[in-house]
Amino acid sequence: MHSDPGGAPDRSRFGDLLAARVAERRSQVVLGIDPDPSLLWPEALAGSTEGSAGERAAAAVERHCALLIEAAGPACVACKPQLACFERLGEPGWRALAATVSKARAAGLLVLADGKRGDVPVTARAYAQALLGATPSPFGEVPGLGVDAVTANPLMGADALEPLVAAARATGAGVFVLVRTSNAGAADVLDLALADGRPLWEHLGDLVRSLGAPAGSGLADVGAVMGATEPGHLARARELMPRAVFLLPGVGAQGGRVEDLAPAFEPGRAGGLVTASRSIAEAGAKQGGAPMPDAARAEAERLREASWSLAG
Amino acid sequence: MHSDPGGAPDRSRFGDLLAARVAERRSQVVLGIDPDPSLLWPEALAGSTEGSAGERAAAAVERHCALLIEAAGPACVACKPQLACFERLGEPGWRALAATVSKARAAGLLVLADGKRGDVPVTARAYAQALLGATPSPFGEVPGLGVDAVTANPLMGADALEPLVAAARATGAGVFVLVRTSNAGAADVLDLALADGRPLWEHLGDLVRSLGAPAGSGLADVGAVMGATEPGHLARARELMPRAVFLLPGVGAQGGRVEDLAPAFEPGRAGGLVTASRSIAEAGAKQGGAPMPDAARAEAERLREASWSLAG
Repeated sequence: MHSDPGGAPDRSRFGDLLAARVAERRSQVVLGIDPDPSLLWPEALAGSTEGSAGERAAAAVERHCALLIEAAGPACVACKPQLACFERLGEPGWRALAATVSKARAAGLLVLADGKRGDVPVTARAYAQALLGATPSPFGEVPGLGVDAVTANPLMGADALEPLVAAARATGAGVFVLVRTSNAGAADVLDLALADGRPLWEHLGDLVRSLGAPAGSGLADVGAVMGATEPGHLARARELMPRAVFLLPGVGAQGGRVEDLAPAFEPGRAGGLVTASRSIAEAGAKQGGAPMPDAARAEAERLREASWSLAG
Repeated sequence: MHSDPGGAPDRSRFGDLLAARVAERRSQVVLGIDPDPSLLWPEALAGSTEGSAGERAAAAVERHCALLIEAAGPACVACKPQLACFERLGEPGWRALAATVSKARAAGLLVLADGKRGDVPVTARAYAQALLGATPSPFGEVPGLGVDAVTANPLMGADALEPLVAAARATGAGVFVLVRTSNAGAADVLDLALADGRPLWEHLGDLVRSLGAPAGSGLADVGAVMGATEPGHLARARELMPRAVFLLPGVGAQGGRVEDLAPAFEPGRAGGLVTASRSIAEAGAKQGGAPMPDAARAEAERLREASWSLAG
């Protein structure tokens, strides 16, 4: 994504890229793209008349995502496609994912691939090739999705994260590591008390801090997923990870409130990214009657304004 | 996979299915399928003359996997495609994955999809649809990969695993949860001491035991990934999870030895599945000169014999 001909590669550009985009778009909102073929906008369903169920569903998903990006994208700085939602449609689903990434880039959005991958080093390198880099082959390089950031699972330790971090750093991208997630079950493992008295998620916060390299903006290229459903953790998380960007899922449908997220923004407006998916895409269904794109646009703008004024 | 017309569905068939297949094939070996386009067998490279680099690489990967299954499959009870290795080839990679699953089934192998997924419940359901079930859509059901088992990551807690377990149980499939993995970095998090003095992985073992339902064979449908590189853990793991099938990666290339795995087989021969990938596929390259399929067949048979005699 960034090339630096003639100079040493800048190994920590993601923080700067993000800070610039947040300032330019005046938004810290990340549009979650989690298409469910049973909940697509009516506007997306017309025209899928040929092919298998998977091909027709994937074509409708692709149209839905395009409409969602057109409607809500202007109020957002990035989008976050959920890989599971595309993978469940098989081969045509992967095609719809690639088309959605292109559409988002054309709309000026950064793209965060949400797959929460984590595996042994040789496999982590394969995921890095799939999402951030390219795969060498006897037939030439096979380009990956080419996203700006990925989510990653730290359970298997530092050597499972390092190939993703290295690939991200080489292209100016970022990695968001799960630290304290937004689901109820997060308490089962992430909140376990360690022998030193701290919960496990704080240990993962240390890992995030140690893996990240800060950019000129002061923001590191390794961030943390911190669920917005437990805002009480944010102040402590900010102490542990002063330069990490926090990806904050769980606002809206899962119960989190933008007003509780202030500690995320201490390093600057780009220090916190407010992620919402269903609360934007399904805003029209909840209001009953409003056209889906208009309702999504309004909800994304409401979130943008709420977080922008909070962090000002 | 299993239907039970006229009766209550049997909710715990995976253990029985696996025990029967192990007895029938006289093998506990799982063929790891981790195709690297730069390390394909020479026999697989001929014929890819059209299309993009990704299409040509995926076609060669598909041929490589078919040859590997033909050569090493007869000594194995199952195969374990590594999803990352297919995803890095994009849309044609997903097609090669589906073709490889079909090929493995036709060869009589069970299929374990190795993706180590873990996410919030709504997303875990999407992964379950992708791998184990089907996705409802306005255009009809979109079938998933339809595999016999998946690997899963427990970091996000029980509610991230339950949708995978439920979908597996509904089709007679199994779930293998990461408990103590085979990479060096596993010590960073999985070995952390908890406040009660136990390492984190033992807590995950409790989670595996509580999620699993045993079949008539005595084996549960929720198993554990236990790296063969730390065999000292196996006896303790067996105490914690007396009915879980252990998926044992790390034999061969990562340094694990079949001879150290006896505690895995305490509940019976199907209690441990010995997984090897590179040590089988690259056996010919190491021997320098032997045809790749012959060397792979011999190495798989050597592993089969070593584990079968150990568990007898």
